[in-house]
Amino acid sequence: MAPWQETLTPAEYQLVFYFLTVAALALFAGFIRSVFTQTEVGSRFRPAVIARLSITAVASLTYLLLIVTFASAYTKTASGYQPGDGAESLWSLRYMEWSVSVPLLTFELLAVCTLVGVGVRRTQFLAGSSAFAMIFAGFLGGVVIDGGTNRTALIVCGLISCVFWVLTNIVLIRAVRRSLPGVTPLAALLMRNATILLLSGWVVYPLVFAIQIWGSGAAWATTMQIALCSADVIVKLGFGTLIQRVAKLRTAEDVRAGDDVHAESIWISSVKQSDAGRPLEVHLAEGAQVHPRHARPPMSAAVPAAAPLEADDGDETDDESGVPQL
Amino acid sequence: MAPWQETLTPAEYQLVFYFLTVAALALFAGFIRSVFTQTEVGSRFRPAVIARLSITAVASLTYLLLIVTFASAYTKTASGYQPGDGAESLWSLRYMEWSVSVPLLTFELLAVCTLVGVGVRRTQFLAGSSAFAMIFAGFLGGVVIDGGTNRTALIVCGLISCVFWVLTNIVLIRAVRRSLPGVTPLAALLMRNATILLLSGWVVYPLVFAIQIWGSGAAWATTMQIALCSADVIVKLGFGTLIQRVAKLRTAEDVRAGDDVHAESIWISSVKQSDAGRPLEVHLAEGAQVHPRHARPPMSAAVPAAAPLEADDGDETDDESGVPQL
Amino acid sequence: MAPWQETLTPAEYQLVFYFLTVAALALFAGFIRSVFTQTEVGSRFRPAVIARLSITAVASLTYLLLIVTFASAYTKTASGYQPGDGAESLWSLRYMEWSVSVPLLTFELLAVCTLVGVGVRRTQFLAGSSAFAMIFAGFLGGVVIDGGTNRTALIVCGLISCVFWVLTNIVLIRAVRRSLPGVTPLAALLMRNATILLLSGWVVYPLVFAIQIWGSGAAWATTMQIALCSADVIVKLGFGTLIQRVAKLRTAEDVRAGDDVHAESIWISSVKQSDAGRPLEVHLAEGAQVHPRHARPPMSAAVPAAAPLEADDGDETDDESGVPQL
Amino acid sequence: MAPWQETLTPAEYQLVFYFLTVAALALFAGFIRSVFTQTEVGSRFRPAVIARLSITAVASLTYLLLIVTFASAYTKTASGYQPGDGAESLWSLRYMEWSVSVPLLTFELLAVCTLVGVGVRRTQFLAGSSAFAMIFAGFLGGVVIDGGTNRTALIVCGLISCVFWVLTNIVLIRAVRRSLPGVTPLAALLMRNATILLLSGWVVYPLVFAIQIWGSGAAWATTMQIALCSADVIVKLGFGTLIQRVAKLRTAEDVRAGDDVHAESIWISSVKQSDAGRPLEVHLAEGAQVHPRHARPPMSAAVPAAAPLEADDGDETDDESGVPQL
Amino acid sequence: MAPWQETLTPAEYQLVFYFLTVAALALFAGFIRSVFTQTEVGSRFRPAVIARLSITAVASLTYLLLIVTFASAYTKTASGYQPGDGAESLWSLRYMEWSVSVPLLTFELLAVCTLVGVGVRRTQFLAGSSAFAMIFAGFLGGVVIDGGTNRTALIVCGLISCVFWVLTNIVLIRAVRRSLPGVTPLAALLMRNATILLLSGWVVYPLVFAIQIWGSGAAWATTMQIALCSADVIVKLGFGTLIQRVAKLRTAEDVRAGDDVHAESIWISSVKQSDAGRPLEVHLAEGAQVHPRHARPPMSAAVPAAAPLEADDGDETDDESGVPQL
Repeated sequence: MAPWQETLTPAEYQLVFYFLTVAALALFAGFIRSVFTQTEVGSRFRPAVIARLSITAVASLTYLLLIVTFASAYTKTASGYQPGDGAESLWSLRYMEWSVSVPLLTFELLAVCTLVGVGVRRTQFLAGSSAFAMIFAGFLGGVVIDGGTNRTALIVCGLISCVFWVLTNIVLIRAVRRSLPGVTPLAALLMRNATILLLSGWVVYPLVFAIQIWGSGAAWATTMQIALCSADVIVKLGFGTLIQRVAKLRTAEDVRAGDDVHAESIWISSVKQSDAGRPLEVHLAEGAQVHPRHARPPMSAAVPAAAPLEADDGDETDDESGVPQL
Repeated sequence: MAPWQETLTPAEYQLVFYFLTVAALALFAGFIRSVFTQTEVGSRFRPAVIARLSITAVASLTYLLLIVTFASAYTKTASGYQPGDGAESLWSLRYMEWSVSVPLLTFELLAVCTLVGVGVRRTQFLAGSSAFAMIFAGFLGGVVIDGGTNRTALIVCGLISCVFWVLTNIVLIRAVRRSLPGVTPLAALLMRNATILLLSGWVVYPLVFAIQIWGSGAAWATTMQIALCSADVIVKLGFGTLIQRVAKLRTAEDVRAGDDVHAESIWISSVKQSDAGRPLEVHLAEGAQVHPRHARPPMSAAVPAAAPLEADDGDETDDESGVPQL
Repeated sequence: MAPWQETLTPAEYQLVFYFLTVAALALFAGFIRSVFTQTEVGSRFRPAVIARLSITAVASLTYLLLIVTFASAYTKTASGYQPGDGAESLWSLRYMEWSVSVPLLTFELLAVCTLVGVGVRRTQFLAGSSAFAMIFAGFLGGVVIDGGTNRTALIVCGLISCVFWVLTNIVLIRAVRRSLPGVTPLAALLMRNATILLLSGWVVYPLVFAIQIWGSGAAWATTMQIALCSADVIVKLGFGTLIQRVAKLRTAEDVRAGDDVHAESIWISSVKQSDAGRPLEVHLAEGAQVHPRHARPPMSAAVPAAAPLEADDGDETDDESGVPQL
Repeated sequence: MAPWQETLTPAEYQLVFYFLTVAALALFAGFIRSVFTQTEVGSRFRPAVIARLSITAVASLTYLLLIVTFASAYTKTASGYQPGDGAESLWSLRYMEWSVSVPLLTFELLAVCTLVGVGVRRTQFLAGSSAFAMIFAGFLGGVVIDGGTNRTALIVCGLISCVFWVLTNIVLIRAVRRSLPGVTPLAALLMRNATILLLSGWVVYPLVFAIQIWGSGAAWATTMQIALCSADVIVKLGFGTLIQRVAKLRTAEDVRAGDDVHAESIWISSVKQSDAGRPLEVHLAEGAQVHPRHARPPMSAAVPAAAPLEADDGDETDDESGVPQL
Repeated sequence: MAPWQETLTPAEYQLVFYFLTVAALALFAGFIRSVFTQTEVGSRFRPAVIARLSITAVASLTYLLLIVTFASAYTKTASGYQPGDGAESLWSLRYMEWSVSVPLLTFELLAVCTLVGVGVRRTQFLAGSSAFAMIFAGFLGGVVIDGGTNRTALIVCGLISCVFWVLTNIVLIRAVRRSLPGVTPLAALLMRNATILLLSGWVVYPLVFAIQIWGSGAAWATTMQIALCSADVIVKLGFGTLIQRVAKLRTAEDVRAGDDVHAESIWISSVKQSDAGRPLEVHLAEGAQVHPRHARPPMSAAVPAAAPLEADDGDETDDESGVPQL
């Protein structure tokens, strides 16, 4: 029996409801945090900020759908909360969210690595596709083929998914290892911790998948939901927090080294890392000029002596010459 | 039988649901990305940014409607998921979205071309109307006339649509070819790639339309939905990403050449393209002056010696002279 | 029979659905465009920006309601789509939206005219009230009195509405004509075109009203909806685009003439109109001073020598003196 | 019979629907206006801006609920629109909104008065609590006690409410009168007008309350709804507009007097009140220093010579020393 | 009998409805206030701003759910408003919200303390986990175990919760006491008041929990809801206001002492605390340089002499060399 076909006791129902809602609210708070701290990171590391914003937004929306699905799919009966047809979406919706957010998590990590130019785009493409394939294989086995109840399909798809999981790990670890010598020791430490947190968190998902293969019963179904909610919150918020700190630190290092300016001072845990800076006065190309100082152009009632915007003015007139005067 | 009248197997149902939701989440992430990267492009190329924002916003909303429609239109029965009356909207809603987003895609491409002034407005008008006509003809044949089941109407409208499709392609290719000599080699390469991606992606849609003419059955209906979802994501996000890169590159070139300033430094894939710049001190018109330095104006309890804002002050009093004192 | 009581054929139903949704998406895209281009206009012409933002927001919301109403009010039957009670709202909701957006359209036009001070406020009041009265009279005749089926009421209210329509036109045309000599020829041309577009667009609405008096049948009802959707999009977006261009042009003229500074350079269709400018160093009032440079104030563990904020400090203590120490 | 138990004629129904929707759209447009004009006021007067934003947001949301309630609570019958149980919320929701927005209206007015420090906080507290008590007493009599049908309760609660109404008026008028001598004559005139508008608008609400005591019938119920909608729009938008103008004027006066700088020039009705200003170069504390110019810190592969961030670096290592190397 | 199983009289129903809605609107106004005042605090104290934003956002959303739950769970009958199955969520939803917002409240307080670096992160972790455990224990006893009707479970869980409540208090009080000597007397006073307000507010929740153990009846259920609504508003808004004032004051002190700059002047209750400041001119690393002034790079039609972006240009070509020319 698939986990979405188990009848839940009232206590199990309340616990699943609790973890779904708390995860939804926490992820939404994480989204708000991402929005209002996005100015703290320089434009160089903005891709990390964008990934974090997208991940928390997409996850918040999906949890909203999960709550609506949960509230509408279960009916209270004398023997407990009976699932309806919609309960399957409590599992399938998660695969849909992961298909978007797991590739984005790899982009978030790569954005603070030291890869540049085509190198970073190639690695992103590799890690992103591999992560997507990992999730899609899981979805085929866990939901699509025979409604997730075919043990052979579960195992085969689980193995394919595992291959891509290993591949993604290798790509990410290689990128991080290559980056470590190029950053300061403190940034390197934070990047290592972030990588370990992300990759450890990802271990939870195959374990939950394994429960679907060998375990059964309402208690396992409840455990799976709680594990998935907790892992989502820890990976998406905890990892995002560490990456944000790396991005702030590296921005501050760029400012201190004179490679960039940042409009506000950067503080991490109330320790100042760099001062606010002001860009240089613009320099003009040779021969280029700011618009020439001139008196206000002649008004339309006057005879235009020398139209200051000849080119456009003329075109405009051509284009709309058939227009009658009011 | 129209594709929205086919009964889907559970696996087909789950796949369509998966692709609709993943596309919706990806497009929404693309919208968030557009919002938070819009400051990276100079005001000259902002029309490209606006087009991208509108496209991703409109597509996200439409996919939300598609998901709601899908969830409510199909009913689980013993023989599979049976479509109700609303299932037709799974197809018709797409035409409505394309009617807005396809013209905007042409605007997005034209915004980074080198056309200026009336030239760009004329080309926009031509490409936009032609793209709209292409979609509207498809809608008439594929949905309106005899509910999309009239093969003659399908073929005739398909042909009309094709004519406008070719016309749009010609307008865009001409504009791009004319622009290439006027930009740097790197920008030219990116523009070519973006154009190729857009025009290749657009090939998918007539193919799907052709399936409606000759194919039938639930497998084809599922294939059509998956193809449309994938094409939407690739065209709208992939093309948008390339155009954004062109716009950033051209902004950086304007800054380096001294034609404009940009408040933050521009980085592409961690390679710095230009520094943050500060505008020049404002210059005043001859005879013009900053507001004169003066002591705080007399308070209303004092006798006003010389009202600093005579004109407005007097008018205000006239206007509201009937107002009693508190 | 009122137009909302006609039974629609499937093709008519699909067409109305198409135009409602496309208009909704286009207006929403217009709203997004207004939001992200609002920094392009100087603070002097911001009222035009605000009007445009409000118009597109209000119209998007109303079209959302129209779509929901449309989807829920019609039922598919063998003889076509039968309207229910709610179908009347497809007409009445439009009057409600116009009551807000038509006065705002007049404000948008007046905001780029050269009227100043009380003059502009008086003209706004006159044009706004007159526009509101025009819509409200139409609503009384077309919906309220005998449910819009009383031909005498339709004609009488239509005539009253016409009087206010003429009045609004006169107020606007006078304001524009007075403004033309005070702006540059290019701005004058754009203002004329915007005025012509707005006033021509407004001709559609009385014509549709006239259909309700003399026409009947589902084809006319469909035509009316399509005409109203098209007119809404053209007036609200096309007119808004022209006014935005006037506002940008006049901002650039103010910058070039030294009357104002603008933080970013202004480009219209890739033609640069003015440079980004930086405000002057602030000048202080005589005797005024920046906060005096001093060492960090004494901490609360130290004996406060001379409190730097005596007044507020003392008050604060009075106010909350009953508070115990932790 | 309470006003929410009256059966409405179709014309009355359409009128109430019209005024509810138009008020909702107008208040929403007011919210948008508040959002996009909030940069026009200096940080000193920001509390007025915040109050205005909150009032229009809260009112828009409440009107949305009112429309939903109205649409769902009335059923079309042969004898007219019959109210259901939910119709009572058309009245009770208004009290809930007033409980929040009326105290905020008093804050909005006080924010542009000349009271400072603890004085302003004390007056805010007094005016806010008194305004809240005024609404809550009305709610008890008009809705809670015997479902709003007990005439004695209506009169007693009405009288208590009146006492707080008078008290609020006194607090506000005293604060305004004290402020008038401290502002310029033009600002004083506008503040007087704003106060008169607010306090006159508030006269409508007790009159409507009185209708509930003595009047009855569907015509009165319709009149009450129309009066409340109109009063809400006039007070919330008209008063807010006047206060915004006072806040802009006082900001401009602060700029002209050298008490503050403002990043953009301030225009009121196309009349320039003050120039854009640039803050002074920062001055540092004695002995304080900008971060010292140094070469990029040693990378983690190198031997760190002298860690530039010793404190945090060391702690970080302590804290997470158990972390294995990748 | 659990409090969500009591039948409410109409007056009780109206009162609960009133307090839920007023709290929702007030918290939403608090969210808007947080959004538009977030620029008033320096980047050092931004964590306090983020906590406040998240708390008000999460609470507003939860109250929205509470209102929907309340409206749908109770049915009007002759004997009063009868609760349905959903009424339990009126209690359980609150625990879910507290699980997120109570840890955030501790972060908000710690963000204005003088702890830095690892110290603040450790204290945050301790206070946050302890606060979460406090809520979760309450949820287990009050809702999960035997549906909240098991008195032993209530008492045991209540005691566990109390232990964590005491622990959280100790952690916070210690952090605040350690911070007081390091801030100015005025900031110290405000911090003390904020702490007292927060900890006193938290006393309400165990009291309400105790009612569930010993009290019963509809009057108590109503009292509990009113008490919880009032405590939520007072703690979340009142405490947030005081912390914001501390953060503004400490930002102003940093500016006056030359430790940071702030882009706008800081005013508290119309008393100016610090001037707007401008960051220093950026200093470059030794040997570093702004992008060299050069003429516009060669266009793609020309022969590129020396590619200005060799590295990226070359890679780009490699990467996409298979791309045909248009």
